[in-house]
Amino acid sequence: MSAMPRSDLPLQDLLEYRCSTPEPQDLDAFWERTLAENAHPLDVRLEPVETGLTLVDTFDVTFSGYGGAPIRAWLHLPAGRSGPLPVVVQFHGYSGGRGLAHQMAPWPLAGYAHLTVDTRGQGWSNGGHEPTPDPEPSAPHHPGSMTQGIQSPDTYFYRRVYTDAVRALQVAASLEATDAERVAVVGGSQGGAITIAAAGLAPKVGLRLRAAMPDVPFLCDFRRALDVATSGPYLEIERYLHTFRGREEEALATLDHFDGVHLARRAECPTLFSVGLLDTTCPPSTVFGAYAGWGAEDKQIKVYPFNNHEGGEGYHQRRQLSWLAERLA
Amino acid sequence: MSAMPRSDLPLQDLLEYRCSTPEPQDLDAFWERTLAENAHPLDVRLEPVETGLTLVDTFDVTFSGYGGAPIRAWLHLPAGRSGPLPVVVQFHGYSGGRGLAHQMAPWPLAGYAHLTVDTRGQGWSNGGHEPTPDPEPSAPHHPGSMTQGIQSPDTYFYRRVYTDAVRALQVAASLEATDAERVAVVGGSQGGAITIAAAGLAPKVGLRLRAAMPDVPFLCDFRRALDVATSGPYLEIERYLHTFRGREEEALATLDHFDGVHLARRAECPTLFSVGLLDTTCPPSTVFGAYAGWGAEDKQIKVYPFNNHEGGEGYHQRRQLSWLAERLA
Amino acid sequence: MSAMPRSDLPLQDLLEYRCSTPEPQDLDAFWERTLAENAHPLDVRLEPVETGLTLVDTFDVTFSGYGGAPIRAWLHLPAGRSGPLPVVVQFHGYSGGRGLAHQMAPWPLAGYAHLTVDTRGQGWSNGGHEPTPDPEPSAPHHPGSMTQGIQSPDTYFYRRVYTDAVRALQVAASLEATDAERVAVVGGSQGGAITIAAAGLAPKVGLRLRAAMPDVPFLCDFRRALDVATSGPYLEIERYLHTFRGREEEALATLDHFDGVHLARRAECPTLFSVGLLDTTCPPSTVFGAYAGWGAEDKQIKVYPFNNHEGGEGYHQRRQLSWLAERLA
Amino acid sequence: MSAMPRSDLPLQDLLEYRCSTPEPQDLDAFWERTLAENAHPLDVRLEPVETGLTLVDTFDVTFSGYGGAPIRAWLHLPAGRSGPLPVVVQFHGYSGGRGLAHQMAPWPLAGYAHLTVDTRGQGWSNGGHEPTPDPEPSAPHHPGSMTQGIQSPDTYFYRRVYTDAVRALQVAASLEATDAERVAVVGGSQGGAITIAAAGLAPKVGLRLRAAMPDVPFLCDFRRALDVATSGPYLEIERYLHTFRGREEEALATLDHFDGVHLARRAECPTLFSVGLLDTTCPPSTVFGAYAGWGAEDKQIKVYPFNNHEGGEGYHQRRQLSWLAERLA
Amino acid sequence: MSAMPRSDLPLQDLLEYRCSTPEPQDLDAFWERTLAENAHPLDVRLEPVETGLTLVDTFDVTFSGYGGAPIRAWLHLPAGRSGPLPVVVQFHGYSGGRGLAHQMAPWPLAGYAHLTVDTRGQGWSNGGHEPTPDPEPSAPHHPGSMTQGIQSPDTYFYRRVYTDAVRALQVAASLEATDAERVAVVGGSQGGAITIAAAGLAPKVGLRLRAAMPDVPFLCDFRRALDVATSGPYLEIERYLHTFRGREEEALATLDHFDGVHLARRAECPTLFSVGLLDTTCPPSTVFGAYAGWGAEDKQIKVYPFNNHEGGEGYHQRRQLSWLAERLA
Amino acid sequence: MSAMPRSDLPLQDLLEYRCSTPEPQDLDAFWERTLAENAHPLDVRLEPVETGLTLVDTFDVTFSGYGGAPIRAWLHLPAGRSGPLPVVVQFHGYSGGRGLAHQMAPWPLAGYAHLTVDTRGQGWSNGGHEPTPDPEPSAPHHPGSMTQGIQSPDTYFYRRVYTDAVRALQVAASLEATDAERVAVVGGSQGGAITIAAAGLAPKVGLRLRAAMPDVPFLCDFRRALDVATSGPYLEIERYLHTFRGREEEALATLDHFDGVHLARRAECPTLFSVGLLDTTCPPSTVFGAYAGWGAEDKQIKVYPFNNHEGGEGYHQRRQLSWLAERLA
Repeated sequence: MSAMPRSDLPLQDLLEYRCSTPEPQDLDAFWERTLAENAHPLDVRLEPVETGLTLVDTFDVTFSGYGGAPIRAWLHLPAGRSGPLPVVVQFHGYSGGRGLAHQMAPWPLAGYAHLTVDTRGQGWSNGGHEPTPDPEPSAPHHPGSMTQGIQSPDTYFYRRVYTDAVRALQVAASLEATDAERVAVVGGSQGGAITIAAAGLAPKVGLRLRAAMPDVPFLCDFRRALDVATSGPYLEIERYLHTFRGREEEALATLDHFDGVHLARRAECPTLFSVGLLDTTCPPSTVFGAYAGWGAEDKQIKVYPFNNHEGGEGYHQRRQLSWLAERLA
Repeated sequence: MSAMPRSDLPLQDLLEYRCSTPEPQDLDAFWERTLAENAHPLDVRLEPVETGLTLVDTFDVTFSGYGGAPIRAWLHLPAGRSGPLPVVVQFHGYSGGRGLAHQMAPWPLAGYAHLTVDTRGQGWSNGGHEPTPDPEPSAPHHPGSMTQGIQSPDTYFYRRVYTDAVRALQVAASLEATDAERVAVVGGSQGGAITIAAAGLAPKVGLRLRAAMPDVPFLCDFRRALDVATSGPYLEIERYLHTFRGREEEALATLDHFDGVHLARRAECPTLFSVGLLDTTCPPSTVFGAYAGWGAEDKQIKVYPFNNHEGGEGYHQRRQLSWLAERLA
Repeated sequence: MSAMPRSDLPLQDLLEYRCSTPEPQDLDAFWERTLAENAHPLDVRLEPVETGLTLVDTFDVTFSGYGGAPIRAWLHLPAGRSGPLPVVVQFHGYSGGRGLAHQMAPWPLAGYAHLTVDTRGQGWSNGGHEPTPDPEPSAPHHPGSMTQGIQSPDTYFYRRVYTDAVRALQVAASLEATDAERVAVVGGSQGGAITIAAAGLAPKVGLRLRAAMPDVPFLCDFRRALDVATSGPYLEIERYLHTFRGREEEALATLDHFDGVHLARRAECPTLFSVGLLDTTCPPSTVFGAYAGWGAEDKQIKVYPFNNHEGGEGYHQRRQLSWLAERLA
Repeated sequence: MSAMPRSDLPLQDLLEYRCSTPEPQDLDAFWERTLAENAHPLDVRLEPVETGLTLVDTFDVTFSGYGGAPIRAWLHLPAGRSGPLPVVVQFHGYSGGRGLAHQMAPWPLAGYAHLTVDTRGQGWSNGGHEPTPDPEPSAPHHPGSMTQGIQSPDTYFYRRVYTDAVRALQVAASLEATDAERVAVVGGSQGGAITIAAAGLAPKVGLRLRAAMPDVPFLCDFRRALDVATSGPYLEIERYLHTFRGREEEALATLDHFDGVHLARRAECPTLFSVGLLDTTCPPSTVFGAYAGWGAEDKQIKVYPFNNHEGGEGYHQRRQLSWLAERLA
Repeated sequence: MSAMPRSDLPLQDLLEYRCSTPEPQDLDAFWERTLAENAHPLDVRLEPVETGLTLVDTFDVTFSGYGGAPIRAWLHLPAGRSGPLPVVVQFHGYSGGRGLAHQMAPWPLAGYAHLTVDTRGQGWSNGGHEPTPDPEPSAPHHPGSMTQGIQSPDTYFYRRVYTDAVRALQVAASLEATDAERVAVVGGSQGGAITIAAAGLAPKVGLRLRAAMPDVPFLCDFRRALDVATSGPYLEIERYLHTFRGREEEALATLDHFDGVHLARRAECPTLFSVGLLDTTCPPSTVFGAYAGWGAEDKQIKVYPFNNHEGGEGYHQRRQLSWLAERLA
Repeated sequence: MSAMPRSDLPLQDLLEYRCSTPEPQDLDAFWERTLAENAHPLDVRLEPVETGLTLVDTFDVTFSGYGGAPIRAWLHLPAGRSGPLPVVVQFHGYSGGRGLAHQMAPWPLAGYAHLTVDTRGQGWSNGGHEPTPDPEPSAPHHPGSMTQGIQSPDTYFYRRVYTDAVRALQVAASLEATDAERVAVVGGSQGGAITIAAAGLAPKVGLRLRAAMPDVPFLCDFRRALDVATSGPYLEIERYLHTFRGREEEALATLDHFDGVHLARRAECPTLFSVGLLDTTCPPSTVFGAYAGWGAEDKQIKVYPFNNHEGGEGYHQRRQLSWLAERLA
């Protein structure tokens, strides 16, 4: 039995840790411009899907994302529902996606509408048969999503993903089955990063979320992450810079526009974070850095002291169910 | 990127492969004696559990297993049900268990009663807060379940587990909410082994199952498994015999009484197997060996040619949902 | 010190080994159509580059590849040359590219013109500062090049790469500094696969090559490679099929159009292959399979019995220098 | 060649390091109660064993341990002895045991009586043919001994082991062949932990030891060990807490009753410790923590600066032979 | 838990396996010349050593080996001996040596004289403070002993080692304390290879041994070993040939002069072999190859079916003690 | 994707880091004595070699090194040269050597004479067919060069290597084709260490170098290297001291005489260093330690922040070409 040595701070220091990277001056301008350029109609289409499950009705959703590209999602609704439902929008971890139509998170079973959204260009590890493509070309980069278009904020992969996410929230709020005043957002790892970004950017499109639940979020405090992470997709950036010597500042300047630490400050809704103290993929200091600045007062972080990137799993899901029920009651 | 070399046969040879180990002469006698010794009342208790899920009603079940030890399970029932339901009994993979009460397999969502049963003494990787203990002591053995009591069939760990499983089927058939004529059994890996054993032993207690769905089943064709498996708990047996030189025949003679190849021949219900051709934990030849002798004519095996022990995952679940719906319609 | 077990055949069997996959019926039609659709002008541009090397003159070359996309290469010429030179066209291993302008293979130092060509979309491990992009979008796939567009021969990544390669040969033959009657092609691993493909397809555009030198070539006998390779990019295909269950035949039908075994049969020039008997990335049987069918009589294969994918390195380069000198004298 | 990065302190800091975990208030009460409850007769039985060795007489010893369970040991005596001998009691590393009867430590060859004692429930890596069972059942736990009964000090595995050890010292002192005034105790790793515990608890049963020699001892300063150890059985506790989230304080409260740091303070005999500065299984700070508080003045610690958990091996054995000869002269 | 796939034959085939490499024609001539050139006086010196052990008297032995180089050994004698003793000569595994003076094998404790001999140039893993140097220089080679001087039989490292071994047997037979008619030889791994070589070459110097006990012997059937071994020092030869391409035949021609398969045929004394069926360092087929041709009728091989290179350890030692007692009674 | 945790300091601390090990008092005396004892004639022989390259003339050079042993090198000269040329002397990384005659570094192509020198006793990973032997015997040591003769500065392996290097510089300055006033020295890893040593020792033989370019140099600040390095040959020293307990001070006292930190202070020529901040083989602090004390004012260090021991590769070569052109213009 063996393990890697811990490379992040002990808990008492994590509680005090603050990310020292300044915000890029054009951060708000960049995102406002991006969202303004992508304010075209949502163009939502729903098609009912046969899943074999009798308790849940499922729809195959397509909406128009960044640059007009079609983005896919599943909408799950409790079968015997009546009246508009609170809705939980879920984003997914790196390499994954919405999966197959019959695969259920607990949200619809707890009476919520549940919109579970593909990440464009991903889905290679668990994405169902027809994952959502990303039609934008990129310069050669380390395989994977992390350094696609990293040459500038305008071309960076996550510009498209975060914009898709904000629009997914708008989709969720616009459906007949849902209550636009009770939208929550959730996701783990990359899904946690998108959750933070969506919560931080939602005010810019006039959306008032009721709750955000980022688990072990990725894409926070990039400089520290590059120092401390010893597994997972942050390392793609290291491998890219390993080859493309001299592009360090260019890459970091791009990443600063997508840093969850900065975007979390713009969030206005209650939040429940989770973090694993042994997380080598999304090191705890990077998570605490984002949590520390979260822009709303109703915030909690649940610490899992002996967990790596799996975090709290079913234990945390249980906690989220009751925390969210209180917030959306 | 790297991988282990394949160590099992190519598909065309797997289709022809037959396990060459003879059955122990006392196999039926051993199991009939075991089940007769454990024919005490089931002593089922149900307590409703609050899960936060509104579409499913969940009960904490305790019943009396091998030697009278209390065995735990969850019973999940669709919330708005009416009349007795077909019931799916699920067993779990090595080290796991029934998990937390709100964690749902697709069965209850598809309208089945679902009884998901702990494996005594396990639950260390994913078993919820109070996994089911195994009160029987064992001689020192390699850590884990595989060599507990391997000195004789009478003391072997899986004697208790298989007996618990047969009794779990009896529990499922005996509930008010269920239809005793429509009992199915399912499980993956160790859960697949228990599925085979339960299907093979059910006739001995007069139970007529309607379907068995073992996925990537464990505990089949032990001699070949010890030759071919390069990961997973079969290796515990190798480590045990590494230390306890000279006990090879004793151990193999015990294992022969628990071999899925032999027990599958006694099964009388339709079956849907799955197998991964790259499975290094439950090598495909051991699975084909059990499938080849299955004792009923309505049988299928779904081959996943580029999968290891994960097998078909959601893809296979989807297939199981429709296969089972046809069988239990 | 440890090593992987050998998974390929012993030498005596390799000498007899023949790939059993039949050619797709439309193979020639597919490639003739592809090359016909990409018969636009080469549009070659040369810009002199300052490298600091005084013995070699270097030019940054751009030409129009598949679909009109600009492809980059270096042209190296001996500084004091006079009269048209024989020319060696080089393709590169997976993930690499032409590198930096001052990095020299032995060819220009031996008096050849040397055209060293980027692989579009690659260059992430060693490609210089501005590797050649691939502007064609692809459906989500396992990260890397191997499963880009694998849904059909028309969309597959290597359709573009092989076409670029044939056009690079045309570029090499068209330059003022070169002798169109003395064109040779060389490359290792993926570069060896492209070498075979370019040699096999050259007759279709009326090009008569004088020599082809594929080292430890990739992309040959895909079915066997998927069985035997335990490292390297063949495994991307395995990982793709691991996720996208049910697409095995679709993927293999695509790959058959790009198999070096089939394309080698169409080659008409002398060849010198190399192979490492311990190669786990491009297993020796797959190399022997391509070599066995090579379509010209003047052929040799140099076996390196104790080498993995590095093959003969400097030893083989030395052999290539003298073999090629004889062929191009 | 590669190695893990060092994760523990440099030597100068180790010399100053002190464990900061307070003693549980009921520590003495717990152990006094435990020993009082297990003050039944030792019930020692000796059977001569044929080993093939002519210089040493060996006996198979059974005595009554915690809860009355039979514990096995070998007693080795120099063949030509006369008069009562000083006696060395040895405990063993995790997973091991007394081994086979002919396997000799140097103690009997140096003229000592040597009692080498099984650890109940272990022996799976090296324990001879009939290792000592542990008849007490435990709740499901991570495989191995470390989390057996960790729910409370009363049920914890090492309660039984430490009690067995104290009783083994009593056995050693009670034999006809031995001199009760010259009892020494020795062991490495887990055997070192038991050595510390036995030395610390011996005064509670009125035993006056003459020497204790713990090598690279385990089970010291658990909180730090869980932070710093990157190999070995401390990680079982991490894996247990990984699954059983929320039981951290319960587990640590149990472990505090078995911490060598606390028990070492109660020792009254001279000691010779050893420590490897590169030890990743029993990190040096945890060893220095126990050594710092050792309750007798005659104490030494031998530092092996370039050794991992193997410590000083034969070099240290040689040192122990002469150190002990001085103490027991 | 994971393991390497088996790469050697199953037991039933091992029993039939025969090495197919022919003997070099000059094999006997080479060794007779070598031994004749090294027939200088043994020049044995004995110095008593203080070990702290009272049951055994130990002497530091130096004798003149190949080329007159001084070779070191320990001689252990039971303390109260009377009359000449049968003597066991032991050789050591790769990288090791005689160790420290107080470290005892069971032989002296069983009443034998025990001569435990250094391997020149080794001792880097476990050789005591002053291991025996090898004064002969070698051409650059892969680090370690395996390719030292592999350019020809005359310069090969093991020419010196095997000669030292034959002379060690002569030393053992020549001592005052020993009975020259009762000399046995033992060793594991490299020590097993030297045991075979010494037994095979002893007749050439007129020595009649009474027993040879090679365990899991190394240096047998080199061609197969290079194909099948996946760990251990055979791989040094692979790494050497990896670099020094083209020297394969030269190296193999050298190795043929040192192959245990050939030398075993020349042995004339009874033998007890051991072999581990999972041995990846000295694969079982190479051991069976040597055993099959052993030149005496009284031969046994003990198979350990679930052991790697550790073989039978204490279990086999116990067997050796009784087997040898019968042979030397 | 995974990586080791960083174990060295962050950049801002590296810039301030100073090695704290004092110089041995006899450092200058030791080296002056060594060089004086090895002041015999250089005895240079040149033989032209046929490489197949027409732009470069290559000679096989032999000169008399430490103790008179013959040392091999290649001399490469631009084919059309006129007049004495500036000369670049290159040393090689651990285990390598001058390679094959046709393998070209950029120096001759840029118009320099290029003397590329073997490291005696090495060449096992990449050394051409006849690497240079080291005729001096050594006591048994961990396989490899690092602990050969480490018992004293007089017998240490690098005493011979550094002396060979100084003499190679003298050879370079003495050739007809070269300009003795324009000698530069370059090398990476071990070659970087030899570069530093040669630059530091050159003044002692009256040589005035014009430039030294050590890349990611090895053999600097040994104490820190033993603490921080997690890969590469520093670990040989750790393994040696692991076995030979008690020899720590002896070994470190030897190493102090060869430490690049001390020798760099004696250098008098301009220098361009390179360092990888993720270098686990030659950790950055050890490189900065040597750079900090370099004995000339014209010094630069190029930092590669996301590179391990590969450092800047082609990027740095390009920088060296222009830096050196400025220095030797």
